[in-house]
Amino acid sequence: MNKKGIKLIEKEFKEYIKKIAAYKEALALIFWDLRTGAPKKGVEQRSEVVGVLSSEVFNMSTSNEMESFITELAMGEASLSPTTNKMVQECKKEFVRNKKIPADEFKEFVILQSRSESAWEEAREKADFSLFQPYLEQIVAYTRKFVEYWGYEGQKYNTLLDMYEPGMTVDILDKVFSELRASIVPLVKQIAASEHQPETAFLYKKFPKDKQHQLNLAVLEQLGYDFKAGRLDETVHPFATGINRGDVRVTTRYDENDFRGAIFGTIHECGHAIYEQNIAEELTGTLLDEGTSMGIHESQSLFFENFIGRNYSFWKNKYSLLKEFAPGQFDDVTLDDFYRGINESKPSLIRIEADELTYPLHIMIRYELEKALFNGELEVKDLPKVWNEKYKEYLGIVPENDAMGVLQDVHWSDGSFGYFPSYALGYMYAAQIKQSMLKDLPEFDALLESGNMEPIRKWLNDHVHKYGKTKKPLEILEETTGEGLNVQYLIQYLESKYKKVYKIQ
Amino acid sequence: MNKKGIKLIEKEFKEYIKKIAAYKEALALIFWDLRTGAPKKGVEQRSEVVGVLSSEVFNMSTSNEMESFITELAMGEASLSPTTNKMVQECKKEFVRNKKIPADEFKEFVILQSRSESAWEEAREKADFSLFQPYLEQIVAYTRKFVEYWGYEGQKYNTLLDMYEPGMTVDILDKVFSELRASIVPLVKQIAASEHQPETAFLYKKFPKDKQHQLNLAVLEQLGYDFKAGRLDETVHPFATGINRGDVRVTTRYDENDFRGAIFGTIHECGHAIYEQNIAEELTGTLLDEGTSMGIHESQSLFFENFIGRNYSFWKNKYSLLKEFAPGQFDDVTLDDFYRGINESKPSLIRIEADELTYPLHIMIRYELEKALFNGELEVKDLPKVWNEKYKEYLGIVPENDAMGVLQDVHWSDGSFGYFPSYALGYMYAAQIKQSMLKDLPEFDALLESGNMEPIRKWLNDHVHKYGKTKKPLEILEETTGEGLNVQYLIQYLESKYKKVYKIQ
Repeated sequence: MNKKGIKLIEKEFKEYIKKIAAYKEALALIFWDLRTGAPKKGVEQRSEVVGVLSSEVFNMSTSNEMESFITELAMGEASLSPTTNKMVQECKKEFVRNKKIPADEFKEFVILQSRSESAWEEAREKADFSLFQPYLEQIVAYTRKFVEYWGYEGQKYNTLLDMYEPGMTVDILDKVFSELRASIVPLVKQIAASEHQPETAFLYKKFPKDKQHQLNLAVLEQLGYDFKAGRLDETVHPFATGINRGDVRVTTRYDENDFRGAIFGTIHECGHAIYEQNIAEELTGTLLDEGTSMGIHESQSLFFENFIGRNYSFWKNKYSLLKEFAPGQFDDVTLDDFYRGINESKPSLIRIEADELTYPLHIMIRYELEKALFNGELEVKDLPKVWNEKYKEYLGIVPENDAMGVLQDVHWSDGSFGYFPSYALGYMYAAQIKQSMLKDLPEFDALLESGNMEPIRKWLNDHVHKYGKTKKPLEILEETTGEGLNVQYLIQYLESKYKKVYKIQ
Repeated sequence: MNKKGIKLIEKEFKEYIKKIAAYKEALALIFWDLRTGAPKKGVEQRSEVVGVLSSEVFNMSTSNEMESFITELAMGEASLSPTTNKMVQECKKEFVRNKKIPADEFKEFVILQSRSESAWEEAREKADFSLFQPYLEQIVAYTRKFVEYWGYEGQKYNTLLDMYEPGMTVDILDKVFSELRASIVPLVKQIAASEHQPETAFLYKKFPKDKQHQLNLAVLEQLGYDFKAGRLDETVHPFATGINRGDVRVTTRYDENDFRGAIFGTIHECGHAIYEQNIAEELTGTLLDEGTSMGIHESQSLFFENFIGRNYSFWKNKYSLLKEFAPGQFDDVTLDDFYRGINESKPSLIRIEADELTYPLHIMIRYELEKALFNGELEVKDLPKVWNEKYKEYLGIVPENDAMGVLQDVHWSDGSFGYFPSYALGYMYAAQIKQSMLKDLPEFDALLESGNMEPIRKWLNDHVHKYGKTKKPLEILEETTGEGLNVQYLIQYLESKYKKVYKIQ
């Protein structure tokens, strides 16, 4: 093949990908709309639209045309740009993965997913696992079969981990989780025994919704979220979505009797959003213009939520802003008491309401259950029992019913196995990245105290955001921090912080 | 061809159309989003998505596959359902129209359209027609050429009228417009000379935006707008959009110093929306699930805005609701004075701010100019001069500059010639439909006074809404009213109402 030939194919390939990207963008907008304010009666017909667009994306990703592009461009790799080569690699991964599943089984699975989600909703509402069990059994059976089709290295669960966190394995996770657990569990016990429990009554005073909204807008703005490339809406389950890099929307949820949910949720989503708003412009329309993995994405949201939002210096700067919007509520609360109050840690049953210290334990429980399910050591019918045993063991508490326990998360209902670990990985990445950032920005706390976010944001842009999917998660971690995954930074952070908050010697 | 063969083709055709409908629905949502709150920085990339989806719709509508469907299904007409036959007819009309334009010229025209719109915006901002003139000249030149490609019966302008109002002709419009003009012009003069000018100072008192919003929500609800199949947002230019029949959204615009814009705008859009919310469910996904023409659509919005919203009995019922949301503003205003105030009529320069009596004159001016442009009696360069002469003649006033005159509407910038008359047609249809409704519901005013909208809405559903595009506009008019277009009903309405408001003997 001569050079001119390959350039022409490259051009056609890019046009082809642009079309896929356009369909995906339309889908992203539809999903945002469905979650923010789409009228109920239009949803059924909208699902048809989602079906048509998704099929188009699937068909284009697995077409003969795509196969030719992949084959021909792979042969001309040397004369193509690095971006094109990355695009081809991503398309190939997707192509191979999709092609291995027989079309009929994939279709059956898609239909099962939506039925299973409805069954899960009902089961959770009625706190009755038996309503969900038959669906979950099928979902697990399909997923086990898919893993066989896809193949695996080492443990079968590795294949599922790799879908959300390319390169992640059971070996790595077993090691870091056991170290993390060994540190957190005794710390949680020390905290429970501490005589220095923080004041928290002020947290639950009424904070009017519209005032919270104004506070959240102001904080987003000050954190560097670009409102010309985004907007803040209200939803039951907060999220961030990058529709394109110039349109990255966040949502939050206001509880008038506990302002923390909204503000920390907003700061969390802000981290996701700033990632997507700062992906290099030239990646638009290449399918590489998104976060590189769930874990790295979560590292950015947790960096913002925990290392910025729950930082003393941050509140030293923002406490007067907070008071401005909540007149009276914090008048008698010193900054120290405020800081200790928002950093209260207590074992709890619901993952999404957990504090930053106990949160990883919730993830480890799910990880262990998933691993056991796919390594053949656990069956679906035994999930509720083992779930409760693990909560007893790790957190010392047991759910009253399955709605508070094994039924609380949506993830398993559509077969998103391998996803949960990303939450904890993101947290470890974030601590490790923070440590590395401190070498360049030793004045980190002083920057927060002065309200100057620019250097921090720029550092993250340069080391993480701009690359989009052109670098793999472990590449980003290693290039940014000079080492592989190291859980010690998170352990140091948690031990040092919580010993101070609870005045443990 | 045997019967089984045709049924299979019908099935495939319907699947094919469903896909087109899905793309159109995605586009409708994107347009809603662009106009309501899409972040600016995302717009450029969103335009790419619009381009991809629009091209797909265009390609599917003009494909060889579509041509086969049309040909083969036309041959089996007798064994197909009436809906399928209507679908084929609509597709054929579209196919033939699009196929007659050489692809290159169509593409050039699409590019010209977007440039021309930008030029118009700038020209209007600077009140300088010369900036827009060269673009408008090209737009007119292309449209003239397209009319030649499309062909015409009688006058060339008929072909353009037919695009928005199938079956409408210059002959019909000349006749009704001259009758209407003969009635309105002297009435406007009588009104100007009347000693009984209504009080209007109370209209301009401050009415807070959030209170107006609540009022508008309440009125929409009471008019029968289904909020489970819609939502109300705020935009610079109010509109209604049927994304699907279960998702028909309206927008409005609040002016704190004149509540009329929002409330009458909302009632107007409500008429459009109730039309689309009540199209028969079985038409979903057939491309027949929209209003049958611009004129019939406008008949529904104007029926709501004028025959309901500006009706004395309506306000007899709603006046206390209004007062509830605007405490104080109307305390000293009797219902009679209020009614006369909101029905003040005065010649004005801006079409979209005109009252219901003088509004048709604005339309007639545009109609006469368009007709002259396409019958070769007028050139673009002379538009400002002729525009001003006609405003002097019809309304007795002359714009200070072209921004207040010939540059005020967006319609010509993208070549929407033939569209303006629909506004006046809709008004005539509405008066004629009202007259016919009175035979079945002589208690019309009493229903409004008691706040019982149900029988009125149901009548409109049964006679107009449910048919969607399965009936042509003139079919609906004739079947509903027993006669063709008759302007006398509108004339009677305007004369009787305005003589009362202005106490003219």
